[in-house]
Amino acid sequence: MTDQKATNITWHAHNVTTQDLERLHGHKGVTIWFTGLSASGKSTIANAVAAALHGRGMSTFVLDGDNIRHGLNKDLGFSPEDRVQNIRRIGEVAKLFTSAAVINCTAFISPYVADRKIARDLQPETFIEVYCKCEVDVCESRDPKGLYKKAKAGQIKEFTGVSAPYEAPERPEVLLDTGRMSVEACASAVIETLKSRGFVS
Amino acid sequence: MTDQKATNITWHAHNVTTQDLERLHGHKGVTIWFTGLSASGKSTIANAVAAALHGRGMSTFVLDGDNIRHGLNKDLGFSPEDRVQNIRRIGEVAKLFTSAAVINCTAFISPYVADRKIARDLQPETFIEVYCKCEVDVCESRDPKGLYKKAKAGQIKEFTGVSAPYEAPERPEVLLDTGRMSVEACASAVIETLKSRGFVS
Repeated sequence: MTDQKATNITWHAHNVTTQDLERLHGHKGVTIWFTGLSASGKSTIANAVAAALHGRGMSTFVLDGDNIRHGLNKDLGFSPEDRVQNIRRIGEVAKLFTSAAVINCTAFISPYVADRKIARDLQPETFIEVYCKCEVDVCESRDPKGLYKKAKAGQIKEFTGVSAPYEAPERPEVLLDTGRMSVEACASAVIETLKSRGFVS
Repeated sequence: MTDQKATNITWHAHNVTTQDLERLHGHKGVTIWFTGLSASGKSTIANAVAAALHGRGMSTFVLDGDNIRHGLNKDLGFSPEDRVQNIRRIGEVAKLFTSAAVINCTAFISPYVADRKIARDLQPETFIEVYCKCEVDVCESRDPKGLYKKAKAGQIKEFTGVSAPYEAPERPEVLLDTGRMSVEACASAVIETLKSRGFVS
């Protein structure tokens, strides 16, 4: 096909490791796992955290419904089995991003303790669970996508907080009272926790 | 919970976009999709490409059997349906890494044209297919994991190149004669293609 042309390439005997990528990006990878009811602020706060860290030159990525539900998990519905598979796959992808030394935020309702435990156990040292705590009637009053209205009208079955349970984390790394705190205050609290755990300097 | 403490944080009104991440990393994301028989050199060359680009300060990641088969795709076997699902998921994850402005190499046999087309169609502008072309008897003589031996003994069913077909790419962006070229020459050819297409300067 072709002979070696690019003489300015240094060939490395070893594969690029996670440690190599951490040195390149200047920080470790970590998964910041946002959980809470629909409209509790998960995605908004996840994006605010990512933007603040990006502003400091850190490598970030947000996994949320926009890029997962219509992509990797488009073959999944809302049955109990599919919900488990949904969160399992997200947990695995988050772990890959951590291996790539990217600070990754996941923003999914993830209502079950057992499923979140699966995600955590994949990378226990690099998993920060952020519980976006918000009363269901506050979420319902926000309802940006009109989902609570549809759920109450019976048009969506097994809707978390209305017709399906939400199992709150018992010991999340960060608990945010998203019904009362501003987005900025919530994001700051997450970043303070990242600092105290050595992920952000 | 907490008031805003970190006064040195700049709050951004907009989410971090792929363009923002490209500026941060200094390059676009791209998927370099290695396809070929078992022992044709996919993973070795993928890692050599990643190491060379890493040496130039670029953000890279390799998706291969080591981090996918025992993770995201550990629920999949080797049935026709599972093979399709295997490649589909890898294609979706590769697209996420491209969105994160990471140069990602995938190293999987991916024997079927139709499956590779699904992966390509997810990101047609950022998909470089690299065909690692190698005679099956050369692969068999390498056989680092003893898989050809097992396949020939009937211990592995539907083994690509032995008891299952490999559909060669008709128009790959890069064709490597991995039975004859050195790893360095193969990796150089890939990098030259990345240069000519504007992914690497």
